[in-house]
Amino acid sequence: MDHNQFKTAAHSAIDDKDWAQIQEDVDTKIKPGLTHWQSPNFMAYYPACVTYPSILGEMYSATFTAPAFNWLCSPACTEMETIIMDWVAKSLALPECFRSTSETRGGGVIQNSASDAIATIIVAARERRVRELLLAEGLKEGTPEYEDRKFDVQAKLVAIASDQTHSSGAKGALIAGTRFRSVTTRLEDNMEMTGPRLREVLEKCDKDGLTPYHITLTFGTTNTCSVDRFAEIKAVLQEKPAWQHIWVHIDAAYAGASLVADEWQYIAKNFAEGVDSFNMNMHKWLLVNFDASVLFVRNRLDLTSALDITPTYLRNPYSESGSVIDYRNWCISLGRRFRALKIWFVIRSYGLNGMKAHIRKSIGLGDTFAGLVRGRSDLFEIVTKPGFGLTVFRVRSPQGASNGAGGSSDRVVKDEVANDLTKKISELVNTRGEIFITSTVVDGVCVIRVISANALAEEKYIRNAFDVIVRTTEEVLQEQK
Amino acid sequence: MDHNQFKTAAHSAIDDKDWAQIQEDVDTKIKPGLTHWQSPNFMAYYPACVTYPSILGEMYSATFTAPAFNWLCSPACTEMETIIMDWVAKSLALPECFRSTSETRGGGVIQNSASDAIATIIVAARERRVRELLLAEGLKEGTPEYEDRKFDVQAKLVAIASDQTHSSGAKGALIAGTRFRSVTTRLEDNMEMTGPRLREVLEKCDKDGLTPYHITLTFGTTNTCSVDRFAEIKAVLQEKPAWQHIWVHIDAAYAGASLVADEWQYIAKNFAEGVDSFNMNMHKWLLVNFDASVLFVRNRLDLTSALDITPTYLRNPYSESGSVIDYRNWCISLGRRFRALKIWFVIRSYGLNGMKAHIRKSIGLGDTFAGLVRGRSDLFEIVTKPGFGLTVFRVRSPQGASNGAGGSSDRVVKDEVANDLTKKISELVNTRGEIFITSTVVDGVCVIRVISANALAEEKYIRNAFDVIVRTTEEVLQEQK
Repeated sequence: MDHNQFKTAAHSAIDDKDWAQIQEDVDTKIKPGLTHWQSPNFMAYYPACVTYPSILGEMYSATFTAPAFNWLCSPACTEMETIIMDWVAKSLALPECFRSTSETRGGGVIQNSASDAIATIIVAARERRVRELLLAEGLKEGTPEYEDRKFDVQAKLVAIASDQTHSSGAKGALIAGTRFRSVTTRLEDNMEMTGPRLREVLEKCDKDGLTPYHITLTFGTTNTCSVDRFAEIKAVLQEKPAWQHIWVHIDAAYAGASLVADEWQYIAKNFAEGVDSFNMNMHKWLLVNFDASVLFVRNRLDLTSALDITPTYLRNPYSESGSVIDYRNWCISLGRRFRALKIWFVIRSYGLNGMKAHIRKSIGLGDTFAGLVRGRSDLFEIVTKPGFGLTVFRVRSPQGASNGAGGSSDRVVKDEVANDLTKKISELVNTRGEIFITSTVVDGVCVIRVISANALAEEKYIRNAFDVIVRTTEEVLQEQK
Repeated sequence: MDHNQFKTAAHSAIDDKDWAQIQEDVDTKIKPGLTHWQSPNFMAYYPACVTYPSILGEMYSATFTAPAFNWLCSPACTEMETIIMDWVAKSLALPECFRSTSETRGGGVIQNSASDAIATIIVAARERRVRELLLAEGLKEGTPEYEDRKFDVQAKLVAIASDQTHSSGAKGALIAGTRFRSVTTRLEDNMEMTGPRLREVLEKCDKDGLTPYHITLTFGTTNTCSVDRFAEIKAVLQEKPAWQHIWVHIDAAYAGASLVADEWQYIAKNFAEGVDSFNMNMHKWLLVNFDASVLFVRNRLDLTSALDITPTYLRNPYSESGSVIDYRNWCISLGRRFRALKIWFVIRSYGLNGMKAHIRKSIGLGDTFAGLVRGRSDLFEIVTKPGFGLTVFRVRSPQGASNGAGGSSDRVVKDEVANDLTKKISELVNTRGEIFITSTVVDGVCVIRVISANALAEEKYIRNAFDVIVRTTEEVLQEQK
């Protein structure tokens, strides 16, 4: 490509005067309407980090624009994605089976978001289960009988998740056109999906003549960062032959990032057996800007068997030979951006040690904040086990009704007064705009979530946030006296 | 946000020495592996333009990272998207119903790719049709009877497209878990979907007890840029009450860009009645880099009724009041990038006139190339009507068997010798790497597609491409003598 020509062509489209006007509009019309996710005072949802190397990666990706729907469209895009996904799998200490070099034909792919990853996986799971059932019935693919029976069988399929699973679980089942059942969680189980609760749902499905085909387990739920009980659940899934065919997916969208730090890698050992796929979002906590949702599968043929519809205009000798990867058959989108580039830039710039340091710092800040909350047990109580940087707590009812005398009980119970107070204080804090936090409801209990884990997070900000919440709480309690 | 802090944090992650090493690797390891879509010698597939304003938009979007899954997450992202989509609808002269201000509650949304847009639309169409059928049966939403019947009804649904429709039509039906039937096209109809051919498919569905619920019509097919016969097809869809409920989608991924030019806007009049949705990719021909796939619907409730699953942690007073748009319910992804920004930058920089000029230039280059092909009717013959910058032709069999004496017939017929020659020459041209073109097969005829429509395209390149193809053809014919 001739760079001088490009310069000329671009100059005819945009000159310095034009740009000055656009920049002014960005400053005066856009910036005031942004929610500042990169501010150290942003402590809502989960973080969505951005860093300089990542911005450069995005810019280069745009410059190299090539909608890499197959290998031939831009070999470097595909090849680097394969290499980078193997790096990421290794950095997260994921079991060998999720690498492109594995015996199980595993591999990773960059998806737009966890929602896309999970919808993709649910479709792949549906296709795999239907095919197994129809082949077991002796039907032959491509026949009219196969097609008719396929949709009858599909009508009985059920995807499963817990009531704490991200909404993408239910949305994925909806997109795939199948039923969905959720496993109830409870505060006394720390909002974790348990084996016995799952068994109840599976048995109910069996009783209703339905076929569970997919389950999403979560490592770090959206509400409280709880971790489903993997070992217990996997044991339940071994109890009946039909249950052994359920596609097990691990959604580690946020907390999966912690796996870069050695002390958390023991968790990944759970995924070595009995798990079909795993996703996490580097664009949450791992310093790469949105979007960089990485999805790993144990057997890539599960994806390509479900999603490959290759028309003539996409046929080429390289793809036909099976020697190259065409990532369009690993996801819903056909075209794709060169997102491996920004992951590469971030890994190269921060190094694995820099990434570990970032994760450890965030977890430390979370521990500090949880400690501050505990120190004011007159005002607040922790609702679920704090972890991975997140603290989930509520404002105590001044009557102290929620927890018996002195609020010393370990068990948080529903309390409408505390719920109203917590919601009111949370909304007041956000309205004032000094910090930004999220409130939610778990098992009927209204809670505040605080997490400070972006690139600019520091202890002074988390301490200030605590002061803001205390001040607002005292003010509201005073008014109510 | 404190910019100095950000600078410090970033500097700790990347210094000039690090960057020099990364840049060297980009130059030596990445660039040689890229397919240069921006080169003026790139004439394959359809273009995937990138321009400076667009690159800046992508960079700012990354800098402002906010996974805008609802309005509150970053109001500017959502509000600008609504404004920009209305601008785009107006620029393309789409009927009023597709704007956010319309009486039908229409509106536009930026999707990742046409594949995502079409999968989303097919799911929405499925949900709308099933609901209509179940409510007509007197069933009540939320009951077990409704759920059971829902999946029985769904098992009979069929999505329809032509055999020239982009593969995303079939993939969308597959993702949605429904059947798919395609309408055959023929060279004698210029590969356009016709009313009579569609009627045959619809009647066959009726006969088989199946329920067509969605059809994708194409304005500019992937193979030959043919345009389905909208008026004729819409008339057929009026013939039976059940057919009137079919969701009609227009896929104008590539050719839709031509609607910015006044002389093509008459085509958009076809979409005023009887069309539910329309998508086009600004990232193909309209100077915005991938991804900027714009989708417009006549009634946004069709999307949100299908896709809205709002959990507690996403509830907020703004969304609850219905006064703001939450685009997550308009697509499969939850999080979204701030893509309206790059569209805005491009529209501001080029102006509508600059965009019109780009489209007209590309169409002119296409006319020039088609003229060159016609001028060598001893070697080549045009296979489908050239248009929107694309020329589809094949190499004549030296025996002249394909077209009677002198090759003067208008009708192209299948010819294995011509097929082999065309394929061989196309592959040889690509192997040599001076230009990059695509070959494909239409109605059994192997063809070469040439299109030169990126930002750097110029007449001298298209003339050179023709010379390269002529030279290679003569060389191959010589060898075969």
